[in-house]
Amino acid sequence: MSGFHLPEGVIYLDGNSLGALPAGVPGRLADVVEREWGEGLIRSWNDARWMELPARIADRIAPLVGVRGEDVHVGESTSVSLFKTMVAAARLRPDRTVLVVEPGTFPTDGYIAAGVADLLGLELRWCDPADPTAALGDDVALLSLTHVDFRSGAMFDLPTITAAAHAAGALMQWDLCHSAGAVPVDLTAADADFAVGCTYKYLNGGPGSPAYTWINPRIQGQVRNPITGWIGHSAPFAMARDFDAAPGMRGWATGTPPVLALSALEAALEAFDGVSVADLRTRSLELTDLFIAQLDERVTGIEIVTPREHARRGSQVSFRHPQAYGIVQALIARGVIGDFRDPDIARFGFAPLYLTTDDVRAAVDHLVAVLENEEHLDPAYAERNAVT
Amino acid sequence: MSGFHLPEGVIYLDGNSLGALPAGVPGRLADVVEREWGEGLIRSWNDARWMELPARIADRIAPLVGVRGEDVHVGESTSVSLFKTMVAAARLRPDRTVLVVEPGTFPTDGYIAAGVADLLGLELRWCDPADPTAALGDDVALLSLTHVDFRSGAMFDLPTITAAAHAAGALMQWDLCHSAGAVPVDLTAADADFAVGCTYKYLNGGPGSPAYTWINPRIQGQVRNPITGWIGHSAPFAMARDFDAAPGMRGWATGTPPVLALSALEAALEAFDGVSVADLRTRSLELTDLFIAQLDERVTGIEIVTPREHARRGSQVSFRHPQAYGIVQALIARGVIGDFRDPDIARFGFAPLYLTTDDVRAAVDHLVAVLENEEHLDPAYAERNAVT
Repeated sequence: MSGFHLPEGVIYLDGNSLGALPAGVPGRLADVVEREWGEGLIRSWNDARWMELPARIADRIAPLVGVRGEDVHVGESTSVSLFKTMVAAARLRPDRTVLVVEPGTFPTDGYIAAGVADLLGLELRWCDPADPTAALGDDVALLSLTHVDFRSGAMFDLPTITAAAHAAGALMQWDLCHSAGAVPVDLTAADADFAVGCTYKYLNGGPGSPAYTWINPRIQGQVRNPITGWIGHSAPFAMARDFDAAPGMRGWATGTPPVLALSALEAALEAFDGVSVADLRTRSLELTDLFIAQLDERVTGIEIVTPREHARRGSQVSFRHPQAYGIVQALIARGVIGDFRDPDIARFGFAPLYLTTDDVRAAVDHLVAVLENEEHLDPAYAERNAVT
Repeated sequence: MSGFHLPEGVIYLDGNSLGALPAGVPGRLADVVEREWGEGLIRSWNDARWMELPARIADRIAPLVGVRGEDVHVGESTSVSLFKTMVAAARLRPDRTVLVVEPGTFPTDGYIAAGVADLLGLELRWCDPADPTAALGDDVALLSLTHVDFRSGAMFDLPTITAAAHAAGALMQWDLCHSAGAVPVDLTAADADFAVGCTYKYLNGGPGSPAYTWINPRIQGQVRNPITGWIGHSAPFAMARDFDAAPGMRGWATGTPPVLALSALEAALEAFDGVSVADLRTRSLELTDLFIAQLDERVTGIEIVTPREHARRGSQVSFRHPQAYGIVQALIARGVIGDFRDPDIARFGFAPLYLTTDDVRAAVDHLVAVLENEEHLDPAYAERNAVT
């Protein structure tokens, strides 16, 4: 708990959207700005080892998703990262013409797939969320799924679906934005092909922090980075005319590393020092089990949409309610921060690094009070009039 | 001068590679991290107006390049930005198959063009730097040039070349990385089609800060963003299944805005408050004229490769010398920071916001001393053994 800065009087159940501020970040960022940039200036690319930031961060993320750091690239947004892997996947299966995405996925995954399909003359096929592998066929180049659903918190069976994709000759990509850092992920054991994840949710890297990309070393020698920027060159500072990709994931890089954002992220990941993924999962399930049990016992008129089965649950709990928007706003006014998703979902994330069972009980106390006092019907909270 | 933090004893002639630290950045970034992120948490997307950062920054960059803020997008790296515009340009001219780039361009421009050509089945044609328009023809979709050459500091005639490209039916893109913020640019008067620029050189946004993209409003309704991420959606928070591009440059956005980097950049751009581009140019030419005159008068054995004609000069001066690497290293040891570019170029940038004529004279004093004392031949400086 001491590893995070959390405001007084707030119970923060939105770490699945924007992680809380790790205690080490402000000092690190001030040092990077004032000493490394201000005093070191251009010399800091060498002296402060700015160029190595992506690789150092990769080494910290890798154990959270069951891979080697050298197989991870850090940089660009989640959306750009997905574009790169989706284009590469399509080019690895030139005899296949279909990208399969789940219609309830976080929207950017579907939007990017549609853009890639349009650019390369492919077909985007929506699968049934209840059985995504039914959409597989010998025309499918890539199945791309979000591991944990951002609305419901439902988790796909990563190894089984990966095996099914491979059995159908397709490549398998996992979007880990809503799982890594709170849920065990073992990409190596599942032998998936691609994974992309953001770092500002359970990894606490700060608003809009850079995403990461993993590519199975089994296929790294075959994939081609479509956005061949200078940092992916085998010798960027030779400034040669012609592009020559660096080997491995160094060749997956594109632009100049975003040093300020990467420095904040590196400091943020120190919060995972000495913490095992298994322990995080134990704590996460303890928190979500307790929240579900408290809802069952104390709250009526809601429909919990998050699976009760552990194997199918991420680290959030969501329920439907016709006034979900008003409920979330009334809770925020009380200092209990969750969020709302169209049209009627109230969503609560349980970041196992900084939440306690006392937080869970107190949050439900507030929810019970909101409903009893009908605070969610108060026009100040009930009317949707802005982005949330 | 008071608007920047510069270390004691340093004359910084590398602001064309990484701009110095504007005085307002550390405080702003600390506030964003500790108060907006730490205290505001997810609420700051609304309360701290994080979502509006790109548009606010666009409004600050626009007058430096002669355009309207609403026609500028801020986000992603220069390399990703170039990829997006090059793909879009190729799709605007489907009956043409050639992308033209200058072989001495900053390498990422050529690398990205090669990648786009490979992806879309186009041809990459290298033009003659002395006459880039000679490569135009009825097969050319896009001519993409860097306004100021990163090695020599030579500047292309932006309006004349733009007109020639249009006369040949091609689209015209300008890379402004090495000009905007120090050299007047009027994209509107020239009626160019696309422009991309980084913000960490003369705009002082910090290491790896996000790039900007301008698209002429004349063609915004026709171009399609190839990387259709959720922030470019007309209603991102509706989280609809299907992509529907926002109008204008809002539809050019891709990923979640990188808030920390954007906040630093916004604070950095305040250094341009009350400064006219014309005054910057006057100061820049005063500095480079003086440096050239001092070199002519006091230094032998070098070949100045930067044009002496004002209309053909950016805001840097470069010279060739067989021991250019040793000279640059020996100068750095004396606190005069320039940089070296393969194979024999010593390069000195003159950021008009924070350099004085006294700095120029003192820098040449050091250069004269380095050569007289043969410090550039000292093995400690003369041997190249690392990236620079």
